[in-house]
Amino acid sequence: MRHDATPHHTSVSTLYLSAPEAVELIRRKGLAACLAGIAANITEDFLRWESFDKSARVASYSPDGAIELMPIADDATYTFKYVNGHPKNTRLGLSTVMAFGVLADVATGTPQLLSELTLTTALRTAAMSAVAAKALARPGSRVMALIGNGAQSEFQALAFQHLLGITEVRLYDTDPAATAKLQANLRPSGLVVTVCGSTAEAVRGADIVTTVTADKTRATIITADMVAPGMHINAVGGDCPGKTELQAEVLTRGRVFVEYPPQTRIEGEIQQMPADFAVTELWQVLAGREAGRASDAEVTIFDSVGFALEDFSALRFMRDAALELGVGERIQLIPDLANPKDLFGTLRQAGAGEAVVQGQVHRLQAVA
Amino acid sequence: MRHDATPHHTSVSTLYLSAPEAVELIRRKGLAACLAGIAANITEDFLRWESFDKSARVASYSPDGAIELMPIADDATYTFKYVNGHPKNTRLGLSTVMAFGVLADVATGTPQLLSELTLTTALRTAAMSAVAAKALARPGSRVMALIGNGAQSEFQALAFQHLLGITEVRLYDTDPAATAKLQANLRPSGLVVTVCGSTAEAVRGADIVTTVTADKTRATIITADMVAPGMHINAVGGDCPGKTELQAEVLTRGRVFVEYPPQTRIEGEIQQMPADFAVTELWQVLAGREAGRASDAEVTIFDSVGFALEDFSALRFMRDAALELGVGERIQLIPDLANPKDLFGTLRQAGAGEAVVQGQVHRLQAVA
Repeated sequence: MRHDATPHHTSVSTLYLSAPEAVELIRRKGLAACLAGIAANITEDFLRWESFDKSARVASYSPDGAIELMPIADDATYTFKYVNGHPKNTRLGLSTVMAFGVLADVATGTPQLLSELTLTTALRTAAMSAVAAKALARPGSRVMALIGNGAQSEFQALAFQHLLGITEVRLYDTDPAATAKLQANLRPSGLVVTVCGSTAEAVRGADIVTTVTADKTRATIITADMVAPGMHINAVGGDCPGKTELQAEVLTRGRVFVEYPPQTRIEGEIQQMPADFAVTELWQVLAGREAGRASDAEVTIFDSVGFALEDFSALRFMRDAALELGVGERIQLIPDLANPKDLFGTLRQAGAGEAVVQGQVHRLQAVA
Repeated sequence: MRHDATPHHTSVSTLYLSAPEAVELIRRKGLAACLAGIAANITEDFLRWESFDKSARVASYSPDGAIELMPIADDATYTFKYVNGHPKNTRLGLSTVMAFGVLADVATGTPQLLSELTLTTALRTAAMSAVAAKALARPGSRVMALIGNGAQSEFQALAFQHLLGITEVRLYDTDPAATAKLQANLRPSGLVVTVCGSTAEAVRGADIVTTVTADKTRATIITADMVAPGMHINAVGGDCPGKTELQAEVLTRGRVFVEYPPQTRIEGEIQQMPADFAVTELWQVLAGREAGRASDAEVTIFDSVGFALEDFSALRFMRDAALELGVGERIQLIPDLANPKDLFGTLRQAGAGEAVVQGQVHRLQAVA
């Protein structure tokens, strides 16, 4: 529905990428290429950290979960993500995490892209973990323990395979069906997959330990006795108040790296620690302003909660890939007005000769 | 794209109402019925004010404008609105204000409705103004001055006609073309329309004064000398830091009523006043807990900035009307997963016999 162009008429449409279209996009580009592309964008955006207008996410908590909005902007581009976290959803046949997001033009406020972000969040979280591990894990890390084998786990395994060179994953989940699903999904990957009987067994001998559990409880998935010298811990699952995965003592065994401290102190593993607990911002390490790993024996901990900037990076990637491949469709989320001061005209024009506005029409007929 | 149902499979789709579909909905129900329906929902929701998890909107300011997210929730329903405000947009042929919003299920986080809100915001703002005026303006008010004849003005005029019984509107705008457009759009309404040469002329003799200007400046559209006893001032346009329409002195001439004080003190006309300037919350008046207008001579001022609850009310209306009329379409913003723990499966299933994940496939062929 386009109206006649006037000299000043600017068409407003939003590129819409549905979940099936995101699948198509990822299939056509290849998952490894998508993970690499998002990781490259994350690195690029983290290196210009100070250019962003940042804020902690806005969460609405209820007994069953949380719904969050995660906005961020630089001078040119604004993005936000809508994301929920409802651990009991899987019992209803629904995903624990569902998400979508928007990329908009700062100069005019026009929403340019509306995209699914459920699948994309899994990719960006895995890409973020790999970017952090590249900066923090021992070079030559080959074995990763993967604790929590739910919806995010395949993406973590494949991101660490493709971006870090991990060759073996050691799996554990309290739900054996989740582990069996992960094992089956990883079969074609070329990764050596070892199913373990406990977290302790999976962690033993691992260079990297990734936790992606979903229970909304103060859990202690990893205890201090499991931590070995040189280990990198990628703690992904603990990401809201009251939800942690690491025993507090684990956090004292090495250096802790975070995305955005104001958010991580509320949501991350370090919510268990005093407000002045020392952390290092990951962007400072990437930018060479702070040291990363000091020695092969040091324990490094990435206390990841997921920050809006990573979604900014992912939305940029999805937009560019969608435009490159011609995936997605144009939708009219915003009215396309011939005269922007005449919003009411959109009702009049659509009506043509018919009844436009009830109540008016009767008077119109009476007058005519 | 539906996959085979499993015992626990729950289909996830979002009802999408585009701008043209919202036009269709409004045309089929009638604008007066839509204004009345949204006003009824606003009243209902304001009466259960304390059931809502409220917060001031989250704004991202840039030199040219603002992009805001406005979330709110009760126990069952969560909504948010994305809205921009870019006064220079009309020069580019774009709307000053563009908006869309989502209504979601609190229990699971599922987004149930994605709707255009550019047009709907104009309706809900006008409905809100009418709800406030019904409680605050002199009974029997018949003449309204309408200062600012842009995109929102028709909706204000028609809401006051249909919901309050206004019979005459007196128009003024610095842009005569805007006034001419409003006058033409109101021709079939049955309202007596008087075009005035200045704000002072338009305001003289008016029972109600509505200001809906868009300039992002500390303006003084209404000065204290224009205020007559018994007048109700409906100040709609001043709605962000640095943007006001009333001379500060006007605010001392009567009682000031607001939506949500923490937001209004930042964004409303009262940003010009001390932090402890006395205001009355409109919901308290609607609920009978605070007095409204005290006498026919009192001046009442509704310092409206637009609060998330009004969008909640409007989104409920649009959802119910869309379902009733069968308007809108189902979109797959969220992946429809046969097994919610198997997000990765969405890539595998879509691939069927083809290449699913680049890099994996080559290994698969090598193994086979």
